[in-house]
Amino acid sequence: MSKGYSESVARLTAGLSRLPGIGEKTAERLAYHILGLSTEEAMELAEAIRQVKQRVRKCSICCLLSESDPCHVCSDSRRDRSTICVVETQRDAAAIEQTSSYVGLYHVLCGRLAPLDGIDAEDLSVEKLLKRFKNGQVEEVILATNPDMEGDATALFVQEALRGLPVRVTRLARGIPTGSHL
Amino acid sequence: MSKGYSESVARLTAGLSRLPGIGEKTAERLAYHILGLSTEEAMELAEAIRQVKQRVRKCSICCLLSESDPCHVCSDSRRDRSTICVVETQRDAAAIEQTSSYVGLYHVLCGRLAPLDGIDAEDLSVEKLLKRFKNGQVEEVILATNPDMEGDATALFVQEALRGLPVRVTRLARGIPTGSHL
Repeated sequence: MSKGYSESVARLTAGLSRLPGIGEKTAERLAYHILGLSTEEAMELAEAIRQVKQRVRKCSICCLLSESDPCHVCSDSRRDRSTICVVETQRDAAAIEQTSSYVGLYHVLCGRLAPLDGIDAEDLSVEKLLKRFKNGQVEEVILATNPDMEGDATALFVQEALRGLPVRVTRLARGIPTGSHL
Repeated sequence: MSKGYSESVARLTAGLSRLPGIGEKTAERLAYHILGLSTEEAMELAEAIRQVKQRVRKCSICCLLSESDPCHVCSDSRRDRSTICVVETQRDAAAIEQTSSYVGLYHVLCGRLAPLDGIDAEDLSVEKLLKRFKNGQVEEVILATNPDMEGDATALFVQEALRGLPVRVTRLARGIPTGSHL
């Protein structure tokens, strides 16, 4: 009882403080909040964490995280199979999905070229992307990597890998955001 | 799939965003981080939440949260049984405990008088505190409520409740913090 509270609380605090952006103080506050929740609410949270790891897996086609394989996008017959939007992460795909304006398929690279962080070309799911052109259905690939240095390098790399394939490779438009002021 | 990601992730995001100080964006970031954890780490976190609710309960004597009843403080024979430190919450007791300079017992009021928040005298564990003077062991009660309006009101209320009992009632010293500058 060196820290003044019981072992379970200390373990939960330690676990929470390993999450990104959560320091020891915040973790402690969260732990006490969880203690104050009803048993039902706390169990629901624990169960949500458990299920997310048990149920969610990478789609074998596009690497999107989903509860089914092929994922909810790849198996959706209403989606436009002639377009693939290449994104760095699951969250980027989710952001595009939230606009509800894109109806094509996705391909998640699971990262970006960042040699300083030890992420090389082999870590990206480019091989899997190339396999998707075999049936000749795909007409356009939209490179939707982030508009920064690593994102640009990744886009260039993917563009090079797609060279020679009969697909149109495009990138997201870049400029002043709609609705902003100069 | 309105939000662009699977149901489990959405459920976890919703659960996390109900925690204090965690908005929807942060909850989403945390959910994806948890997805990226190893199964072992994620299960450990889920288990920590589960255990904290299952194992930790209020001490029947002092209302401290602990894995045993009586709690780790009340059942510790090395502690000074003549002094009770009255605090508002478990966290306050933990803060005092971290200084390692207090060796007496605690009493957690489980709140503070705050009529605007709907917390009245009956919600505090004052009845339980009064019972602790029956054996005549207690000589001093230290009121360690927070140095603000509600804390002061709570301290006054407890002081009134203790009137007539053969115990010395003291409060924490208040002033310029040691080590600060004027």
